[in-house]
Amino acid sequence: MTATTELVTGVVVTPLKKFDVPAGDVFHGIKRSSPEFVDFGEAYFSTINHNHVKGWRKHTQMTMNVIVPVGRVKFVIFDDRSDSPTKGQFMSETLSLINYNRLTIPPGLWVAFRGEAPGMNLILNIASIEHDPAEAINCDLNDISYHWQQETNNEIV
Amino acid sequence: MTATTELVTGVVVTPLKKFDVPAGDVFHGIKRSSPEFVDFGEAYFSTINHNHVKGWRKHTQMTMNVIVPVGRVKFVIFDDRSDSPTKGQFMSETLSLINYNRLTIPPGLWVAFRGEAPGMNLILNIASIEHDPAEAINCDLNDISYHWQQETNNEIV
Repeated sequence: MTATTELVTGVVVTPLKKFDVPAGDVFHGIKRSSPEFVDFGEAYFSTINHNHVKGWRKHTQMTMNVIVPVGRVKFVIFDDRSDSPTKGQFMSETLSLINYNRLTIPPGLWVAFRGEAPGMNLILNIASIEHDPAEAINCDLNDISYHWQQETNNEIV
Repeated sequence: MTATTELVTGVVVTPLKKFDVPAGDVFHGIKRSSPEFVDFGEAYFSTINHNHVKGWRKHTQMTMNVIVPVGRVKFVIFDDRSDSPTKGQFMSETLSLINYNRLTIPPGLWVAFRGEAPGMNLILNIASIEHDPAEAINCDLNDISYHWQQETNNEIV
């Protein structure tokens, strides 16, 4: 349960516990007492189809806490914050029940994610604020150059 | 998005919105502003294997908000609260992405649930307090007599 700060300042990858239960397993998400917990605004699910990408999007207010209980999703984060020690850097984290981590993304960072598994890729976001289109900025996938293909042998559809 | 109070006082079944998005759909969970939202303590996943039952369990403090984004889960609630107008009554609600509702269960009620689909049956509980074994009471499935078999043709394993 050690939280590890990754290559982009403020982003935290936290291993989560899984419990084997005979009638069906239990997987942790986030607790109010988790160090990464900021506030509760909304919990919602997103899916991302195999080899499809959603992004880029920057939340200006929302802290995201994302978990992937089904499938496998690669998240890529780009830091263009003018005052950040990691300005200009990318980081990626691929989440699944195998690599069962929570990815905490503070506001101000660009995020894109790709479905890596055939079938359902399911993301739970426990967000610090409710959905508000006015606080999110979108840009085209090509506007921030990231070499998705280098990471896997899959082709982006 | 109309909340409907069901056969057991205090239990609320709320239809949730689903959004078709080309790269992958989005499914609502719960917002801070939802009428049923009490407080945020913890979000966690449980799975329930096909034809297996977990229960009975009564939370004395926790309000549960359960959602089923994968598979199909039948929840059964039994009311033995001495001061309840619905004392002695059962209610059931089967959740899935087809019947995509949020089931809000206040403390003081007995709950059991069964996995209804082959493959994964996944439950998200957005709970008003953190997990605390001291606030939950368990009893054997046979201690509260409910005729599971009458509801489906499946046999309980």
